[in-house]
Amino acid sequence: MKTHVFDTALQLDQTAPGRYAGLTSADYWNMVGPFGGTTAATILQAVLRHPDLLGLPLTLTVNYAGALGQGPFEVQVQPVRTNRSTQHWTAGVLQKDAQGDMVVTTTATVVTAVRRETWGLSDTPMPEVARPEQVAPVRYEQSLAWLDHYELRPVRGAIPTQWDGGGDSSLTQLWMRDHPLRPLDFCSLAALADIFFPRVWLRRAKRVPAGTVSITTYVHSGEKELRATGSSYVLGQARAQEFRNGFFDQSAQLWNEAGSLLCTSHQIVYFKE
Amino acid sequence: MKTHVFDTALQLDQTAPGRYAGLTSADYWNMVGPFGGTTAATILQAVLRHPDLLGLPLTLTVNYAGALGQGPFEVQVQPVRTNRSTQHWTAGVLQKDAQGDMVVTTTATVVTAVRRETWGLSDTPMPEVARPEQVAPVRYEQSLAWLDHYELRPVRGAIPTQWDGGGDSSLTQLWMRDHPLRPLDFCSLAALADIFFPRVWLRRAKRVPAGTVSITTYVHSGEKELRATGSSYVLGQARAQEFRNGFFDQSAQLWNEAGSLLCTSHQIVYFKE
Repeated sequence: MKTHVFDTALQLDQTAPGRYAGLTSADYWNMVGPFGGTTAATILQAVLRHPDLLGLPLTLTVNYAGALGQGPFEVQVQPVRTNRSTQHWTAGVLQKDAQGDMVVTTTATVVTAVRRETWGLSDTPMPEVARPEQVAPVRYEQSLAWLDHYELRPVRGAIPTQWDGGGDSSLTQLWMRDHPLRPLDFCSLAALADIFFPRVWLRRAKRVPAGTVSITTYVHSGEKELRATGSSYVLGQARAQEFRNGFFDQSAQLWNEAGSLLCTSHQIVYFKE
Repeated sequence: MKTHVFDTALQLDQTAPGRYAGLTSADYWNMVGPFGGTTAATILQAVLRHPDLLGLPLTLTVNYAGALGQGPFEVQVQPVRTNRSTQHWTAGVLQKDAQGDMVVTTTATVVTAVRRETWGLSDTPMPEVARPEQVAPVRYEQSLAWLDHYELRPVRGAIPTQWDGGGDSSLTQLWMRDHPLRPLDFCSLAALADIFFPRVWLRRAKRVPAGTVSITTYVHSGEKELRATGSSYVLGQARAQEFRNGFFDQSAQLWNEAGSLLCTSHQIVYFKE
């Protein structure tokens, strides 16, 4: 079986306990670096491969400290505290700078957990939207490499086609999945959580420089829900709460087609002007 | 002027660059450890006191890895990457365990930023609620020490008085401020963001063991908004999105009385049964 392009992008070679060598992927290249979702997924991947791992992903916070340039990088992950049912990780991505010094490009913390069946309830039902087959996939005139590896079918709040300053909402709802198809796992879910274009573009209908500073994803799904999702569509919803003095926040929810909330995710994003 | 009890709780003595000695405060004691909000505030305080600090708080993620026991602890903060207008910090709290070994009780990441005036807009207006003077402050028959140091006036979703399993919403709205009065600053704001009792208690009207695992706060306010808030009330709103297999999430917003969104905050919380 051919290795999926996402798995190739996430390939890591262990060089020492908790240290992994990776290589940026041209297939998930964004404007000036890799799609941030793949960086988050790579860090999670390193944690999930660690021999001391306890449980499955519960939280993932990734801080984009500096640009990750094309080429090799190192992922470092360390389990700093292991309890009976939760495990706390610190992580980072480092890369050689122009002077040959290893510098931090990304910091992260991860919590993994052994989860038990308890009382449960969803307080954020999936919005009623058109089915994925009923909405057209996005076509780009000039695409970015990473966008070629996702199928995105916006229901509401697609990227503006008229940059006329006439925006009136920061809400996007879209169906999405990997292209080519790939069964959902924790790493691809972490990447999907970062798929939304900057809310400031939508709210203002104006394209300004913008980039994620920090993202936190809370995983609500276990392996059962991921298996049940397979390679079918995921509904993503994102909206901003506040735009002020160069930064805005974004809150997102991702459901599978059956309406199960897979994860909630929050980020704060830099913007200019 | 008498030092405020909150400032006493946050007192740190620098022992080396980026290393500070602290002492847990009986005044902000919760059931089995300090109120998590004071731990978050203490970490932020250590960052703000660091001589290499650039800018003001933008994000604060705190992971509660293990119980912080009564007594001395150490806060470690490190600026791992300084850019032109943002600075990325890793942080941790350590404490001696029963064997005398220093163990990690808390991990954290912080981003500070120099903020510039830009276009801005609030997409989450403050809900219309009764004024603080119109709603009664909470009175506890058996209180916890930390609750004595906050004035809380619930508008909606107060802690249940009947634990009868009859809950129907996870939404709380309440006015709050320090007691005794203290002008709001970044540290006390970080603490206020963690003030809400567990959403699972409200949603189920059932008291089960619960505790924050990880909290992330995005600061939207600068010093101007904090000064304008002073020691007046802050409106906090919190609700859960998903309760599943031992964990639920909570999203919160905090506005000042003038309706300015001071911060948004998210957490994931462990619960039993």
